[in-house]
Amino acid sequence: MLNARLSAGGIVARMSLDAPSLIATRMRMMRPSLVRELLKRATSPNIISFAGGLPNPKFFPNMSLIDASTDVLANDGGSVLQYAVSEGHPGLREWIAERYRVRFGLDVPVSNMLITTGSQQGIDLIGKVFIDPGDMIAIERPGYQGMLHALSVYQPQWAGVTLNEDGLDLAHLDRVLTESKAKLLMVCPNYQNPSGITYTEANRAAVAEIVKRHNVMLVEDDPYSELGFGGKSPTSFRKFLPEQCIALGSFSKLVAPGMRIGWLIAPNSVYERFVIAKQGTDFHTSNFAQRVLHSYLKATDINEHVALIQNGYATQCAAMLKAIDRYFPAGTHITRPDGGMFIWMTLPDEVDSVKLLDEAIDAGVTFLPGPTFYTDGGGKNQLRLSYSQSDEDKIDEGIQRLAAVVMRHLDAAE
Amino acid sequence: MLNARLSAGGIVARMSLDAPSLIATRMRMMRPSLVRELLKRATSPNIISFAGGLPNPKFFPNMSLIDASTDVLANDGGSVLQYAVSEGHPGLREWIAERYRVRFGLDVPVSNMLITTGSQQGIDLIGKVFIDPGDMIAIERPGYQGMLHALSVYQPQWAGVTLNEDGLDLAHLDRVLTESKAKLLMVCPNYQNPSGITYTEANRAAVAEIVKRHNVMLVEDDPYSELGFGGKSPTSFRKFLPEQCIALGSFSKLVAPGMRIGWLIAPNSVYERFVIAKQGTDFHTSNFAQRVLHSYLKATDINEHVALIQNGYATQCAAMLKAIDRYFPAGTHITRPDGGMFIWMTLPDEVDSVKLLDEAIDAGVTFLPGPTFYTDGGGKNQLRLSYSQSDEDKIDEGIQRLAAVVMRHLDAAE
Repeated sequence: MLNARLSAGGIVARMSLDAPSLIATRMRMMRPSLVRELLKRATSPNIISFAGGLPNPKFFPNMSLIDASTDVLANDGGSVLQYAVSEGHPGLREWIAERYRVRFGLDVPVSNMLITTGSQQGIDLIGKVFIDPGDMIAIERPGYQGMLHALSVYQPQWAGVTLNEDGLDLAHLDRVLTESKAKLLMVCPNYQNPSGITYTEANRAAVAEIVKRHNVMLVEDDPYSELGFGGKSPTSFRKFLPEQCIALGSFSKLVAPGMRIGWLIAPNSVYERFVIAKQGTDFHTSNFAQRVLHSYLKATDINEHVALIQNGYATQCAAMLKAIDRYFPAGTHITRPDGGMFIWMTLPDEVDSVKLLDEAIDAGVTFLPGPTFYTDGGGKNQLRLSYSQSDEDKIDEGIQRLAAVVMRHLDAAE
Repeated sequence: MLNARLSAGGIVARMSLDAPSLIATRMRMMRPSLVRELLKRATSPNIISFAGGLPNPKFFPNMSLIDASTDVLANDGGSVLQYAVSEGHPGLREWIAERYRVRFGLDVPVSNMLITTGSQQGIDLIGKVFIDPGDMIAIERPGYQGMLHALSVYQPQWAGVTLNEDGLDLAHLDRVLTESKAKLLMVCPNYQNPSGITYTEANRAAVAEIVKRHNVMLVEDDPYSELGFGGKSPTSFRKFLPEQCIALGSFSKLVAPGMRIGWLIAPNSVYERFVIAKQGTDFHTSNFAQRVLHSYLKATDINEHVALIQNGYATQCAAMLKAIDRYFPAGTHITRPDGGMFIWMTLPDEVDSVKLLDEAIDAGVTFLPGPTFYTDGGGKNQLRLSYSQSDEDKIDEGIQRLAAVVMRHLDAAE
């Protein structure tokens, strides 16, 4: 057969590969992000970054994690380093369930919980389990850019729901769900990314009542709720919608993102689908990282650690608000968060925040431009500022730099 | 708007959720595996498992990993525990590149390498990047069941290529690639899962010549090549097809699967697509696990460790071969591997290996039935036996139990 083909075909080309023709439709649609390309220029050590949502490394429990690593490897290495169940380490899942009980008074069965490689993987698994090409997803406007990126590969259509300072715009939500027949409603109710706002209790209750009338699954992305300033602890949509809500959580902000450990809680009606999807995706999240984290959590007074990081980010947030009030021109609107990592800034209409980022990098400061957080080209004059990564003096210096760039930008736009 | 709907609609149903209707087509097709359900019964501590491809935990370097964890957390905790680049830790990628140089004389640019959450995630990313529903994948017959599971979610069609003891059947390969127009050819050339066979050098060269004449990407899954008995080190298809081969590797068998660290090497023509896919999937593989592993590898004489595990598995393999020769009836055909973890057994035609597993669990021994490794219902009278997990006495006892079950099964079938 091989010889037959060779003689029939005459001279055979040495390389018949046309690699782009092999790429799946879903990946052909993915474009490199302009903002990511811009930020690649921002490599100077003098740059002050308000761009990424990175925790301040001074809060990482390095030394306690040495103890935890030693504990699990010395006492149970044969199991810690072996393959493990796809659902995740049972002890870690019990710890998370207990935390829901203590913080929210919510009973979350361990059998509805799946450990994920950060909550980012939770988002990806939601796309895998729910989204056929062309399916509609309702999303906050503005919404988390990493979620937009992760779900885009599943080729959905987007329906934005207006976000107000107290939560979702209820009339708009009902209209969007009715008209779009969205399968999923993606929300980040606590210290929202990118706006920093938190849904009020009344807004949540009203959102839940609307959701109950539609054939839609609410997805609560909640990486920030432990970061409430002054000990605040906002609730979970599981309180209102235990059977119609998938809750995502993460240790990235509570302990450290480099562990890559998050979780997903799904109602019985869909949980098993997630376990099957997780098996195929990577068998399970690093068992070593899960076990080390669990040993750390068992040995730690987590409330003390939470108080430490809450106070730290409250101080950093206050420093940024003060610097903005001092250096920025009139006509600047900002949110004033109660927790989390982000301030959302709206500048005069003539500002082009992507162009502004280009100019800001030259001045030694970065942020994320507004359009990153919209699926429909909104946010031109908006930007997200993260105060999580820098100490107070850097924050003051960075905001001063940025204000100067904004004023030059506004002068040039006139 | 909300009120208008409420009054117009009269009494509103409390729960409009129809969860199954929300599930994506790709996940609706996934069925729970019969074999997995059977194995859930196999929970007794007396059971001897030849089912999973689990490493023997006595080879795990627990104590060295304590040193490595202490090293990276004490000296660079702020970076180890922070978010990191999607491509993976540069030092670890350099270590892997150096290993390709030393073992194979191959130059693998670090810029073509991506760290994955085990090579299982590499397989999933390949599905994400390449497979549209209905696309054709050529695969070894029999082929790795975890690959079939991971890729099935992308809804491909399968074209099996006959596997002989020296590698792929060349005439069949050429015919399958010509007729199927497969996008991908999935191979496991070293100590293949499930058969244990290794492609000869001549077979690889001939496979490569055929592949070059087709618009197909060869995917080399290679988790076992460090496990060659007597220091054997078979090569990589990158030697023959640097631009038409994606190579997957893993530390699961070399160090420990609980770390969940593998890698993917892709040619320039497609590499960037994998980085974009990885970003959306989980940002990056656990940086903590990557950094601990890299510190361990730097401090370890890896060749000494490789010799230890090669000798260990060679001993376990010899014990299983000897026990099979001793206890099994005439008419049993087995492969006799040079490395890896698996022996592939073909029993008389009347054996039903799925039914046999059910009976074997009652007798205290497990394996994986042949049909698990075929997309077309083949393998009824075949089974995969893993000798990796058990010491010699357990292997002898388990094979004795299994032989008794087989003989009863054959008697009943007569």
